[in-house]
Amino acid sequence: MFENDNKILLTEDEMPTQWYNILPDLPEPMAPPLHPGTMQPATAEDFAPLFPMALIEQEMSQERFIDIPGEVLDVYKLWRPSPLFRARRLEKLLDTPAKIYYKYEGVSPAGSHKPNTAVPQAYYNYKEGIKKLTTETGAGQWGTSLAFACSQFGMECEIWQVAASYRSKPYRKTMMEIYGGILHPSPSDRTEYGRSLLAEDPNHPGSLGIAISEAVGEAAANPEARYALGSVLNHVLMHQTIIGEEALLQLAKVGETPDVLVGCTGGGSNFGGLAFPFLREKMAGKMNPTIRCVEPSACPTLTLGEFRYDFGDTAGMTPLMKMHTLGHDFIPDTIHAGGLRYHGMAPLVSHLYELGMVEAINIPQTECFEGALKFARTEGIVPAPEPTHAIAAAIREALACKESGEEKVILTALCGHGHLDLAAYENFLAGQMVDADLEQSVIDKSMETVPNL
Amino acid sequence: MFENDNKILLTEDEMPTQWYNILPDLPEPMAPPLHPGTMQPATAEDFAPLFPMALIEQEMSQERFIDIPGEVLDVYKLWRPSPLFRARRLEKLLDTPAKIYYKYEGVSPAGSHKPNTAVPQAYYNYKEGIKKLTTETGAGQWGTSLAFACSQFGMECEIWQVAASYRSKPYRKTMMEIYGGILHPSPSDRTEYGRSLLAEDPNHPGSLGIAISEAVGEAAANPEARYALGSVLNHVLMHQTIIGEEALLQLAKVGETPDVLVGCTGGGSNFGGLAFPFLREKMAGKMNPTIRCVEPSACPTLTLGEFRYDFGDTAGMTPLMKMHTLGHDFIPDTIHAGGLRYHGMAPLVSHLYELGMVEAINIPQTECFEGALKFARTEGIVPAPEPTHAIAAAIREALACKESGEEKVILTALCGHGHLDLAAYENFLAGQMVDADLEQSVIDKSMETVPNL
Repeated sequence: MFENDNKILLTEDEMPTQWYNILPDLPEPMAPPLHPGTMQPATAEDFAPLFPMALIEQEMSQERFIDIPGEVLDVYKLWRPSPLFRARRLEKLLDTPAKIYYKYEGVSPAGSHKPNTAVPQAYYNYKEGIKKLTTETGAGQWGTSLAFACSQFGMECEIWQVAASYRSKPYRKTMMEIYGGILHPSPSDRTEYGRSLLAEDPNHPGSLGIAISEAVGEAAANPEARYALGSVLNHVLMHQTIIGEEALLQLAKVGETPDVLVGCTGGGSNFGGLAFPFLREKMAGKMNPTIRCVEPSACPTLTLGEFRYDFGDTAGMTPLMKMHTLGHDFIPDTIHAGGLRYHGMAPLVSHLYELGMVEAINIPQTECFEGALKFARTEGIVPAPEPTHAIAAAIREALACKESGEEKVILTALCGHGHLDLAAYENFLAGQMVDADLEQSVIDKSMETVPNL
Repeated sequence: MFENDNKILLTEDEMPTQWYNILPDLPEPMAPPLHPGTMQPATAEDFAPLFPMALIEQEMSQERFIDIPGEVLDVYKLWRPSPLFRARRLEKLLDTPAKIYYKYEGVSPAGSHKPNTAVPQAYYNYKEGIKKLTTETGAGQWGTSLAFACSQFGMECEIWQVAASYRSKPYRKTMMEIYGGILHPSPSDRTEYGRSLLAEDPNHPGSLGIAISEAVGEAAANPEARYALGSVLNHVLMHQTIIGEEALLQLAKVGETPDVLVGCTGGGSNFGGLAFPFLREKMAGKMNPTIRCVEPSACPTLTLGEFRYDFGDTAGMTPLMKMHTLGHDFIPDTIHAGGLRYHGMAPLVSHLYELGMVEAINIPQTECFEGALKFARTEGIVPAPEPTHAIAAAIREALACKESGEEKVILTALCGHGHLDLAAYENFLAGQMVDADLEQSVIDKSMETVPNL
């Protein structure tokens, strides 16, 4: 019934009720996280001050499928299942024989894929009696999502937002406050680490790594509070697999399997959420898609970073994880895709990349915004800066098909809308956007502080 | 299959393929528009410099149903059918036995119901060889929608935006430019009328009436251009009936008919779009809902305005229409619902109100934003300031049901999201929002310039 449609829909009854955990399917196990004090493998107890037991168990679980709790399904159903679109008008503009499908996560209340993990994270904490969640946010997508999730379970949500974003994006702050979130610019005077940075520079612009240090510090100091991370960790990526599970069902409705899957990568959760269920089908021999990460040229974690143990934050308070990293001191050029500026890549995505199970490319932001304008003027939706990278990669593929005449099926995720990122488009339309020219020496320098393990 | 769901969906195949024209079903005919020069009933030829013939015919058509062209259906399908939501979490918060359903139009690319008419207006002009559409916009919802629609048919779109909004809402401007729109602040130096106002006051804040005068002036002077209006006119309201037709099908899927229908009214198109198909069913004796307009206390066109012939614009260039008006010179207090600040009400809605077929109330904006916060923290979606009026009215109804114990079915339309109106929420959350206290003398004064017909 959907063959000629733009949108392939699922009913709430058809929504998957389990997340997919790729850990037991890995051909080689991942390197364990290390305790930042002892540099020995971290135990579940080491994580207990920061996360509820249910999430710590998920982080290292060997169950292939994990039931989504009913209370989480109920909240998901405010916007899920999300639509899978066929980009017919974009295909026509590109004059390509390829078929482009995109899974659209901008229909969530927060406007991105982030609530897929914010809701279960809030839920598991709530079930274990936790009253408050702390977190960091850069552009604000994650903070908005966690504030929304906490509002659904009557919990407090305290957010450290990178000061530069806090000052330049007042509307993101408002969005978080609408959902009842309590915000601080980071560095803040609420934590010792923050105060030390403000003493050096009262106008410190902050960074995601610094904001993580502050949010982790507050959670560790308050027994009724825990910390929530919006990407990078195994359980976060697992919660996002609802995206790929739905997309599998939706493509089956039109009898398609993807030849190429492209997803933008910042911390890795949007990519993992879409890709892992397809990777499972590929490992099972049911399809054979090329699976490709797309990162910004200004923060090329996979393509130019090293696979090393590094800290998740700037202050070195988190466990060390073996991942692709540019060094925990790395602060990328100011690009507009705020969600793709993290110094590391999810250990799970890094591991798969090392095993050759996924590919990676980087794309400069002006090419991304050129693609986004083509997309908006045909498909209508104005993409967030992060998925413009996925769109640009899909357009490259579609144009290659035009050359070769191949009728490939291209699948990507449009992980959010750009309604709160219009300053980026203003900049691009005014011809003022430039591509950062990242020198290898900058990466080399920030790698110097990474422990030699 | 949808009884326990939050969202009642239709497939693209189930989307209605006709608009409903209420004109032939009116128990009494409407008063005709008058030519602004002769004060005699205006003819189709009088409208020809401004609108294409297809739309002029629709404006006075006596056909009950009009086929939606295939090219328009194709564009609608980028986001339509739109979902009908059951507000289960809001009901629970209010502890009401009532059922609240809302039809959500924020899923459109422009984020509101406006593309429902922008797309056919662009299409009919395109079919008649027109190269450019001109229009006015206040907050920017309509300008965004028309720019999007023009992008779908390769047409130019020139927009005069009320200067105060142009200066205070830069992101709306960006949104229009993403779709290729060309913007001017109004008053502008592009028209004689604009220049005359700027000579008086170089920082003139503008008004919707002034912007209409400028856009109409440009269209009248350019044979390859026509003008497009986003509300008020009969054909505009008719294009919006796709909302109500879908809602009828969706409620039928769960076996419900509404007891109360509430919709916010600015020019009247969102209200008419939702209400007219239900009014048809009511006239046919198939259901008996109370149907109620909700307007802001600061711009109470139906509840405090007079039913008189008045101009549609400030300069007196448009035909006169018999409608509820506060006087074409009326400029309401700065409230946040930019789409509900027009001095008049659609002649068709005004006529139905005079016949007693629809009711009207007005609500102050702080009550609306209190309702919007309740809504966002339960249902997730952050509403645009305009539909907060409909939400506040629905909450009033639901709380009355709590008192009476009645299990009423309440239907409303959430005609857009508030992602580009977060300054309004910022103001409210900071405790700085006040309710305008509109004196009768202000209305009396602006009514003095209305012709005595």
